[in-house]
Amino acid sequence: MYPFSEGSYAPRNGWYVAAFTSEIGEALLSRWILNQPVVLYRKADGTAVAVEGRCPHRHYPLGASKRVGDAVQCGYHGITFDSGGKCTFVPSQQSVPGVYSIRSYPLVERGLWAWIWPGDAGKADPSLIPDMEEIGFGLDGYRSEPFYYHEVDGRYQLLNDNLLDLTHLGYLHSSSIGTPDDAATPEERDTNERRVRSRRIMRNTKRQAVSEGRIDFDGPIDRVSGMDFHFPGFHAGIGEMLVSEGHPCAGEVLNSSRVWHAVTPAKRYTTNYFFAMGSIDHKGVDEMIEYLKPVLAEDMFATVEIEKIIRTMDELPPELMLKSDGTAVLGRRVLQKMMDAERADA
Amino acid sequence: MYPFSEGSYAPRNGWYVAAFTSEIGEALLSRWILNQPVVLYRKADGTAVAVEGRCPHRHYPLGASKRVGDAVQCGYHGITFDSGGKCTFVPSQQSVPGVYSIRSYPLVERGLWAWIWPGDAGKADPSLIPDMEEIGFGLDGYRSEPFYYHEVDGRYQLLNDNLLDLTHLGYLHSSSIGTPDDAATPEERDTNERRVRSRRIMRNTKRQAVSEGRIDFDGPIDRVSGMDFHFPGFHAGIGEMLVSEGHPCAGEVLNSSRVWHAVTPAKRYTTNYFFAMGSIDHKGVDEMIEYLKPVLAEDMFATVEIEKIIRTMDELPPELMLKSDGTAVLGRRVLQKMMDAERADA
Amino acid sequence: MYPFSEGSYAPRNGWYVAAFTSEIGEALLSRWILNQPVVLYRKADGTAVAVEGRCPHRHYPLGASKRVGDAVQCGYHGITFDSGGKCTFVPSQQSVPGVYSIRSYPLVERGLWAWIWPGDAGKADPSLIPDMEEIGFGLDGYRSEPFYYHEVDGRYQLLNDNLLDLTHLGYLHSSSIGTPDDAATPEERDTNERRVRSRRIMRNTKRQAVSEGRIDFDGPIDRVSGMDFHFPGFHAGIGEMLVSEGHPCAGEVLNSSRVWHAVTPAKRYTTNYFFAMGSIDHKGVDEMIEYLKPVLAEDMFATVEIEKIIRTMDELPPELMLKSDGTAVLGRRVLQKMMDAERADA
Repeated sequence: MYPFSEGSYAPRNGWYVAAFTSEIGEALLSRWILNQPVVLYRKADGTAVAVEGRCPHRHYPLGASKRVGDAVQCGYHGITFDSGGKCTFVPSQQSVPGVYSIRSYPLVERGLWAWIWPGDAGKADPSLIPDMEEIGFGLDGYRSEPFYYHEVDGRYQLLNDNLLDLTHLGYLHSSSIGTPDDAATPEERDTNERRVRSRRIMRNTKRQAVSEGRIDFDGPIDRVSGMDFHFPGFHAGIGEMLVSEGHPCAGEVLNSSRVWHAVTPAKRYTTNYFFAMGSIDHKGVDEMIEYLKPVLAEDMFATVEIEKIIRTMDELPPELMLKSDGTAVLGRRVLQKMMDAERADA
Repeated sequence: MYPFSEGSYAPRNGWYVAAFTSEIGEALLSRWILNQPVVLYRKADGTAVAVEGRCPHRHYPLGASKRVGDAVQCGYHGITFDSGGKCTFVPSQQSVPGVYSIRSYPLVERGLWAWIWPGDAGKADPSLIPDMEEIGFGLDGYRSEPFYYHEVDGRYQLLNDNLLDLTHLGYLHSSSIGTPDDAATPEERDTNERRVRSRRIMRNTKRQAVSEGRIDFDGPIDRVSGMDFHFPGFHAGIGEMLVSEGHPCAGEVLNSSRVWHAVTPAKRYTTNYFFAMGSIDHKGVDEMIEYLKPVLAEDMFATVEIEKIIRTMDELPPELMLKSDGTAVLGRRVLQKMMDAERADA
Repeated sequence: MYPFSEGSYAPRNGWYVAAFTSEIGEALLSRWILNQPVVLYRKADGTAVAVEGRCPHRHYPLGASKRVGDAVQCGYHGITFDSGGKCTFVPSQQSVPGVYSIRSYPLVERGLWAWIWPGDAGKADPSLIPDMEEIGFGLDGYRSEPFYYHEVDGRYQLLNDNLLDLTHLGYLHSSSIGTPDDAATPEERDTNERRVRSRRIMRNTKRQAVSEGRIDFDGPIDRVSGMDFHFPGFHAGIGEMLVSEGHPCAGEVLNSSRVWHAVTPAKRYTTNYFFAMGSIDHKGVDEMIEYLKPVLAEDMFATVEIEKIIRTMDELPPELMLKSDGTAVLGRRVLQKMMDAERADA
C-alpha cells in the first residue's frame, strides 16, 4: 500500500515502541501493533510483558479481560494464559490442550520506552534497539520526559515522511517552531545500516521565539537542527543553539534539546505515535509540554487530511519529488527492502 | 464469511423472529432481516404482515412511507402496494404494470413473537416454528414478558456462539448471574433435527445472589441450567432451582424461569437480538428486567468487540477449539448444512 | 456504478456548478468535484479561479493552505502555485522543477454560478454553459437569489433522478409544494442535444397553499410546472400560475418563478447540491428561503436513504420502470453516452 509496493504494509522484524514504560502497570493495556491486538502489563516482579491481545478460542479481546496474578484470564470463557503466553487453565475441562497458547512478544524496556519485536522472536536482538547514548537519552545534566501518546487516523509512513523532511517546519509550523531558514538550509546526510541522519546547521541566525535557553543572549547564534531515523520506526531529533563565531562567547551552548518521535503502525490506516523530549533546560521541559501540543496537532492534522485524500481518490497520481525528499526516499527504500527480505524469507 | 464457509451468510429457509408481536401495530416498522429491508405492520383486522421494505421503482425505503388503509404507499412517488405485496396504484398512470409487486413474507404470530420466513415461501410450514410448550412458553402459572430489542453491531453467529456455550456465564457475567459452577459442570447434550439441547445439572450447590425464588430457603439446592437452540435462530433457556436430596422438602421447586433469545441476521455485520423471559415468580419478572440489562450489555459488548477484531485483522487465525465447544460446533454445522442445501437447490 | 454501467461514474467533459459565485472570495474554498479535491478562490483582480486541491508533492490539501498574493502556498512544505497551477516557488531549492504544476480548471462565472469543466480543458467551450435566458435567469422584473449548498450523502444520479421525475412532488412533498395533480397530469417532453425538457400544464386547477402570488385571486387557474435538465448536471425549473380561460382576466400571470438545482458529483457517494431561485414576486423570494428548507430536506432524505439501501444490499434487484420514468431514463442515457464517448476517446 502507498507509498510502498502492493501488499507491503510494514516490516515485522524490528524494534518498535509499544508504549512508554510509564504507561505499563498492573492494569492490562490494549494496543494495536502492526494490525495485531496486543496486551501489555507489568508482572508482580516489575517485568513488563506483551502478549497477543486476542483469545485464540473466540477472538475476544484479552485487553478487556482480567489479571489473575501474573496471568491473563480471558473475560469471555475464563481461559487463562501466563505471561509467556502458555495456557494454564481452561475452566470447562481438566486438562489444557497442548496446542493452547497465545503469542508472547519480545519486550525490552530501555529509556522511556518499551520496545516490542512483532516479527520472528528468534531474531529479536536487543542490541538492535537504538543506542540510548546516540539518541541523546540519559546524557549528563539532561532531563527527559514522555509527553504524549496518540493513535492517529493515518497510515504510519505519513508520519515517518513528515519527520524525514524537516523543510515542513517553516510552513506547517510557521506560527511556532518553524522558520523559513529550515527549508532554505541545505541538509547534510549520514547513513549507516541502522539509521539515516539528517542535519542542518544554520550559522549566524537569530533565535526562535521559543527555547530561550538558559542564558540571556541577543547576539547571532548557530542553530543545529536534525533528525535521525532509526529503522523501522524511531526518530531522534536534536536542536541546539550556540553562540556564533566572532563573539567572545563563541561556541557556548545556549540551549540543547532532544525530541523523540516513535512511530509504530497500529491498524492498516492508523498509527501509534509517541512523543517525548529531553533538554538541558529542566524548567523548559515543563514549559514545552503545553507549547508543543499545537505543533504536534499540526503534524497529526497533515497526516489525517492526507490519509483522507489518499483513501478517497481511487487513482492516486504519483508524487512529484524534490531534492529535499532525499532522506524520506532513502527511509522508504530501507523499509521496503526490509519488507521484501521478510517476504523472501517467508 | 466467518465462521461459515466463503460466501455463506445465513440460512433463508427457516423461521426467524422479525419482531415481538407487541412491536407491531398500525405504524410501519422497518427492520433489516438477512440483509433485506422489511416492513412490518398490523392490518385493520389485526393480522400482522411483513412485506419488502424497498420500493422496486427507485429503492426508496417503504418503512419511511405511509399507510393507506391496509396498503403501503411509497413516500417517494406514491406507488401503492397491498398487504400481499401486489401493486394497486401508480399515481402517474391509469393501469398498473403486471410485473409490479413487492415481496410478501410468510409471517406467523406465536407466543411473544412474530416469526418470518425469509426464504422460499412454498416451504414455510408453520409447524416448523419452535413448539411453544417445548420452549416453556405459556406454561401454567408462568408469566412471560418481552424484554428488549437491539440491533447489535456484530454478525449474528457471534450471538449464537455466545448462547451455545454457557461456560461464559461464570466469566463474562461473573458479577451477576454467573458462577464458576457453570463452566465446571459437564454438559449433557440431546439433539434432534430441529434443535440441539444442552443441560447442566449442578447438585448440592448454593443459590445465586439473584433469583431468590418464592420461598425462603438456605439449604443446599440442585440447579438446572440449559439452553435449546432451535435452528436457525432461537434459543430457549431454562433455569431451575430445586431443594436437594436429603432435605425434607427434596425436589421442591424454589424457582423456575425461562429465557428466550431470538437471534436474527439484520445486515451482514449486525444482528436483530430479542430477549424475553418467563417465570413462576411473577413479581420476579419485573425485577429481572432491570437486573438483566447489564448482563445482556456484557453479551453485546463481547459481540461488538469480537466483530471489531475479526474485521480489523485481515488474516484471522483459525480458532482453537475446546471440549465445551461441542454444542456450538454442532450448531454451526447445522446452519452450514442448511446453507449448503439451499445453494444446491438454487 | 448504479445506475450506470460498471465502471461508469460521471461525465467529465461538461460544465458543472462548482460554487455559487457569492461563495468565492479571498479565502480558499475546498470542494470535492468528480472525486477530485479542488480549491476555488478569487484573485485580487476579481477573477475566480479553480485549481487542483492536492499538492503533488505529498498530497496535502491545498484548501487547508495559504494564499500568498494570487498564489496558493501549500501548508505543508511551502510549495507555491500560481493561479494557473504553475509552481513558482519551492522553499528548499533554488530552481523549480519543470514538471511541477497542479491542474488548473476552466472556470466561468455566469448567472449565480461558477461553472467548472473537470475534463479535457481543450474542449471547454463556454457557449456550452446553459443559456441564461433559456433557464430564466436575469429576466426582466425577476429577482434571483442563491439559496443553499449541501454536500449530500448519496450519489449524484439519485438527485438527478429525483429532479427528472416530478411525479414525486405530490408524495415526497405532499405536505408542502406537491399536489396529486402533478403526478396525474401527463408530461410533455421536448429534447435537444443540450437538454431535455419536461412540462406539465394543469388547467382549471386550484392554487397551492404556498406561492400565493402577487394578486388576490380565488378563481380557477392554469398551472405550468416543469424542469429542464441541462446535461450533465443542471436543472432549471419553472412554476407559473395564470388565470384560466373563461375568466375576464384569463391569461394574467399570477405568479412566475424559476428554481435552479445544480447537481455536481462530489465524492463517489456524495453530491454537491446547489439550490437557487428567481421570481417576479420579490418579497416572495425571501419567504421561500425558509419555506423550501423542509422541501429540500425531503429530497435529501430520499437520496440518503436510497443510498443506504443500495450500498447495504449486495445484490440490488433491477428497478421496475414506469411510464413516468421516460425523462429520467432519457437523462441517464445521455450521461451514459457521454461517459462511453469519453472512455472511447481515452
